[in-house]
Amino acid sequence: MKKADVVVLGGLSGITAGISCRRHYPDKKVILIRKEGTVLIPCGIPYIYGTVGGPENNVIPDGLLENNGIELIKGEAVDVDREKKVVTMKDGQEIGYEKLVFATGSVPLIPPIPGIDKENVFPVKKEFDYLSEVHSQMDEVKDLVIIGGGFIGMEFADECRKGRDINVTVVEALPHCLQMAMDNEFCDEAQAKLEETGVNILVNEKVEAILGNGKVTGVKLSGGQELKADMVILGIGAVPSTNLAKNAGLEMGFKNTIKVDRYMQTYNDPDVYACGDCAEKQSFFDGRPTGVMLASIATAEARIAGANLFSPTHQNCGAISVFSTVINGRAFGVAGLTERMATQIGARIVIGTAEAPDTHPGGMPNSCLTKVKLLFSKDTGVIMGGSISGGKPVGEMINVLSACIMHRMTADDIVKFQMGTHPALTSSPIVYPIVNAACKAIIPLKKSA
Amino acid sequence: MKKADVVVLGGLSGITAGISCRRHYPDKKVILIRKEGTVLIPCGIPYIYGTVGGPENNVIPDGLLENNGIELIKGEAVDVDREKKVVTMKDGQEIGYEKLVFATGSVPLIPPIPGIDKENVFPVKKEFDYLSEVHSQMDEVKDLVIIGGGFIGMEFADECRKGRDINVTVVEALPHCLQMAMDNEFCDEAQAKLEETGVNILVNEKVEAILGNGKVTGVKLSGGQELKADMVILGIGAVPSTNLAKNAGLEMGFKNTIKVDRYMQTYNDPDVYACGDCAEKQSFFDGRPTGVMLASIATAEARIAGANLFSPTHQNCGAISVFSTVINGRAFGVAGLTERMATQIGARIVIGTAEAPDTHPGGMPNSCLTKVKLLFSKDTGVIMGGSISGGKPVGEMINVLSACIMHRMTADDIVKFQMGTHPALTSSPIVYPIVNAACKAIIPLKKSA
Repeated sequence: MKKADVVVLGGLSGITAGISCRRHYPDKKVILIRKEGTVLIPCGIPYIYGTVGGPENNVIPDGLLENNGIELIKGEAVDVDREKKVVTMKDGQEIGYEKLVFATGSVPLIPPIPGIDKENVFPVKKEFDYLSEVHSQMDEVKDLVIIGGGFIGMEFADECRKGRDINVTVVEALPHCLQMAMDNEFCDEAQAKLEETGVNILVNEKVEAILGNGKVTGVKLSGGQELKADMVILGIGAVPSTNLAKNAGLEMGFKNTIKVDRYMQTYNDPDVYACGDCAEKQSFFDGRPTGVMLASIATAEARIAGANLFSPTHQNCGAISVFSTVINGRAFGVAGLTERMATQIGARIVIGTAEAPDTHPGGMPNSCLTKVKLLFSKDTGVIMGGSISGGKPVGEMINVLSACIMHRMTADDIVKFQMGTHPALTSSPIVYPIVNAACKAIIPLKKSA
Repeated sequence: MKKADVVVLGGLSGITAGISCRRHYPDKKVILIRKEGTVLIPCGIPYIYGTVGGPENNVIPDGLLENNGIELIKGEAVDVDREKKVVTMKDGQEIGYEKLVFATGSVPLIPPIPGIDKENVFPVKKEFDYLSEVHSQMDEVKDLVIIGGGFIGMEFADECRKGRDINVTVVEALPHCLQMAMDNEFCDEAQAKLEETGVNILVNEKVEAILGNGKVTGVKLSGGQELKADMVILGIGAVPSTNLAKNAGLEMGFKNTIKVDRYMQTYNDPDVYACGDCAEKQSFFDGRPTGVMLASIATAEARIAGANLFSPTHQNCGAISVFSTVINGRAFGVAGLTERMATQIGARIVIGTAEAPDTHPGGMPNSCLTKVKLLFSKDTGVIMGGSISGGKPVGEMINVLSACIMHRMTADDIVKFQMGTHPALTSSPIVYPIVNAACKAIIPLKKSA
């Protein structure tokens, strides 16, 4: 029987967990088992249909595994015997392990809409051949309906029209697109940017049925309207892929995830770890379980899991939830809580907002107005979250906020932040908007003290 | 006699100190006194000669003062009587104060080179009319020699050739351009990028004399070579502008700066504060005085000074030294110590380096390879500094490092960093180079533990 010190089951976070393990324990043999022949960059999937031109340009190279001395076995693991410490493959092969990592990720949520199984209705699976098929189908499409105005839906809508003359409609059940992720003013901005491209957005509308005889021809909305559609893309969320773990008798947690502690160790087997979308997450803020699924969280957890396998010492501080997106050239990012989330948990907050061009002077080429909104606890002054919209630098500005949140900086700390600035790269040091938003929160914070 | 609660003397950091004071003490009357009719964005000065097209496009608008309820008095302060608490202007006007802030900045260092006072030899003064004059002269220039291969010199060299067909030579006394700021591998990269534009760089060369009869015609180098020159720009550093403070009897510190404590309060007058280039700085790392002058430090100090005026409570943690530059489209940034500096103080360090495209997949448009180098204390694992080169996001990535340094994160902390990632905005979460550089430092750190 084949045997390794560590067996990892899964894709993106599996690669990261394997690399982390090899860095911390270079003498350990690591095998990665995965079903997919090719692993796609998950967040790059919408871009397959526009900017990057096809799934073959959105692949995580297996060289990453080779370079880190990780053996890859392509195939489906169908059983885990935790007593014997053996993984059984679909073809009957058995692979023994000392430590096992579940990094089995998630699969798209398929809602129980009548007609959901019609031809040309595509949930966004992270599978190469499947997405290739969607890609080639799309060139024949005239009317595309996207169900769900979250990140995936909005990014798909933005990308699918690049180089294609098709009608795209996004159908969102809530009053705003991206509402689960961002505050209303940013949702409105993102929605307006997407509408500028010619995409049609319908909010407060549910899809009641998918119409057509075999192949989709339209969708019926809760408001009674019928939309023509020769393709439907489903972007309404994902569910953890945890059947194998459940069958192996591992304790399950929130919303069908694998229950793990701060070391990413499963509750009932010290030799089994889990990370990424399949693992239970706790919020950095209140410690409660959270259903958030992000590549940033998955890879951070994978690094922790890999480091802990032979000595659980590295603790997960919980999911901060940091992400960014681009809609029609404008970038949006959030780190930590939004105002909506803070209000929902009843937190007393103080908000500081600031705007500034992301160059100085503002007349530099490609200058873009950046908007920053920061949330601080009224009681402690500690930053609870931040939202930013602007140009390309937003992707890293949101990471500045992530670092501030991770270390529980107060508004006073952020006021004193020493940011490097440069005319072509950042806002001016006088109006640098992260610092200025903190400055503006100082007066109301003082008044409440 | 005119009187205000707070009188601020100075430009960039003066504006920031004034705004900070008004935010913390909205009922206090603030007057800003400055000699210059118009304040330029200091870091934007090289860009006047290329990208932004003239000094009029590189101005800090006085509206910033108005909007914050700060009165502006244009004129030269020539005396401060600390006993009477009165500032006297050149025209005899007297202005009383309760609290006074020196934000008088710096002036260019003029080296004692024979011929330095010839016509068309220009130190980089931060004065509007003066820089306008340089701008109009430059259109007649055929051979420009820039003395000093620091930021100012390199940025000038890069900009002056934009839209002008002139020969530009940079003369640097040290073995590398930018050597005081960056490690050799980054200096080499920056130098090569500048040479690609056609700029000639001479290192290990000092200017022994500036030649010409009245107007400059050339420079003579220590190696014997003579260079043709019809304009010379001096970019070899700056000295604090502190005569007024010295005459007012304030205690002076390192290299002719005004001595201040952690509250930015002067040593011998609790009603007088100083910030920016004119104020003494201590290093964040060892607490020793440091001569570094950066807009990021100046404005951070100004915010602290303004907040402390009527209640010294906000402490300056010391100068981290965070900056970025762009040379021929490639961005370079450093936060904290370089390897060279760490070696000079005898620190035992561990280095982690990583490279990744700043999009994922790397095939996204405008993708740029980002190189990250992080320094950690071998003994504590705490980050001591980081250097980055790459595309536009470097400007904010260096600020991610600044936040990590400010909060003394360890390599282990940074490994667990939750960075938001997006295909068009950042590296992939698997290879995000700040995290990966920390990961790579883990093994040598463990070995040394």
